[in-house]
Amino acid sequence: MPSFIPPSHPRYESLMTREKLVEGFRAGIVVPEGLIAHGRGEAFDYILGETSRDFAIEAAKVAAAMMLAARRPVISVNGNAAALAAEKLAELSRVTGAPLEVNLFHWSRERADRIKKWLERFDCEVLAEGDAEIEGIEHCRRIVDSRGILVADVVLVALEDGDRCEVLRRVGKKVIAIDLNPLSRTAQMADVTVVDNVTRAIPNIVKFAREMKELSREELEEIFKGYDNGKILKRALEAIREYLTSKSLEASRFQRS
Amino acid sequence: MPSFIPPSHPRYESLMTREKLVEGFRAGIVVPEGLIAHGRGEAFDYILGETSRDFAIEAAKVAAAMMLAARRPVISVNGNAAALAAEKLAELSRVTGAPLEVNLFHWSRERADRIKKWLERFDCEVLAEGDAEIEGIEHCRRIVDSRGILVADVVLVALEDGDRCEVLRRVGKKVIAIDLNPLSRTAQMADVTVVDNVTRAIPNIVKFAREMKELSREELEEIFKGYDNGKILKRALEAIREYLTSKSLEASRFQRS
Repeated sequence: MPSFIPPSHPRYESLMTREKLVEGFRAGIVVPEGLIAHGRGEAFDYILGETSRDFAIEAAKVAAAMMLAARRPVISVNGNAAALAAEKLAELSRVTGAPLEVNLFHWSRERADRIKKWLERFDCEVLAEGDAEIEGIEHCRRIVDSRGILVADVVLVALEDGDRCEVLRRVGKKVIAIDLNPLSRTAQMADVTVVDNVTRAIPNIVKFAREMKELSREELEEIFKGYDNGKILKRALEAIREYLTSKSLEASRFQRS
Repeated sequence: MPSFIPPSHPRYESLMTREKLVEGFRAGIVVPEGLIAHGRGEAFDYILGETSRDFAIEAAKVAAAMMLAARRPVISVNGNAAALAAEKLAELSRVTGAPLEVNLFHWSRERADRIKKWLERFDCEVLAEGDAEIEGIEHCRRIVDSRGILVADVVLVALEDGDRCEVLRRVGKKVIAIDLNPLSRTAQMADVTVVDNVTRAIPNIVKFAREMKELSREELEEIFKGYDNGKILKRALEAIREYLTSKSLEASRFQRS
């Protein structure tokens, strides 16, 4: 059902981004539930001002240092992340040496293979065997690759939902999450939470990883040693509150009598 | 791609509601963009506490009075509203005497007819001719029914996006909006904004309409005379800020060291 969105539409930008995800949906990369999840993200992005805030940039730097210092880092990718940031995820993989691993809540062999091919167009290693399981997770996300998440020490999860973050931590892994909702379980449970849109967060992490590529493990550890994720999440919530206050003042100025 | 969601999942309720919309999607009622829009709503509902707040109940009462006092009220329904609240919308139509009118951003003859049939299962009058246009709107939402929105004095729009609200007001109509985002243009431009989930807002309006059905026009006007939508929107924003503050305190209590 193609439909023309006029550039004069007040939500043109946002609607065009939607179209990008809908494209991924038509290609069989994104599931219907993923479209809804994207909408949730849109709303949080909106009340964060749709820009990379200082707390997101700080967390991105720590994330980059942690990935570079890791022995076996892995980047966990779902359908939405692939549709929105495939090229940048591939770049992050090359810079940090962390393979991409396809990990899906709504898993099927066909879909996993489709996403693998979608990502491989951008010159990167993609794991999607699904030949191992992580205990403690009931749904499809338990299915992992024996060369990837199963043996990883640091896992970056882009656009994660639910309880997997908790389980990954329980089995001793460090988790870096990209999540626009600072109140989500994933955001709260991760070691490092980048509260930002994945389309901005990944390029930020890539930039920092490039800058720090030559640092020693000690120098890298220095960067994430004193990091406090709780403070970062608090600042994100504070930013939302301030944004809503400023909007509220604006709105009352425009209110008609 | 059917997938089992275990009841132990922390977002079970929310995911089951999603499934309902996905069902509407599979039936050709909801478009992919509608799934994303629903996700935005979900996020705002979440930070409003997922309940009908006092400001939403006050606005619902005013909305009911305004519809009962109107000469030609109409209820504008899109695909998401039909998927989530068809039965309740039909009930509201019967109580207030306002016909339902199918009005779509992503319009096609087939989709409009499909939604008309979907609604008619619940014993109500549904307009979907699309034989007239409202000037000043570029996209498909300009297409209206000559017996409905075109000649209406009060239009209730459930789950509206964008600029149509503004145009409807410009051509002299009163607009009642149901919108979970108190900062949206629709919310800001409407005469009455019910900041609530459509699944709760419609039953609330139905309840008030039943209670006030026998009131005279003068008595009804008394109810909405002093109404100030700006104050309602301010209270909604205030509620979100308070909710985030309380969540922030909770979160810091759970933060691990």
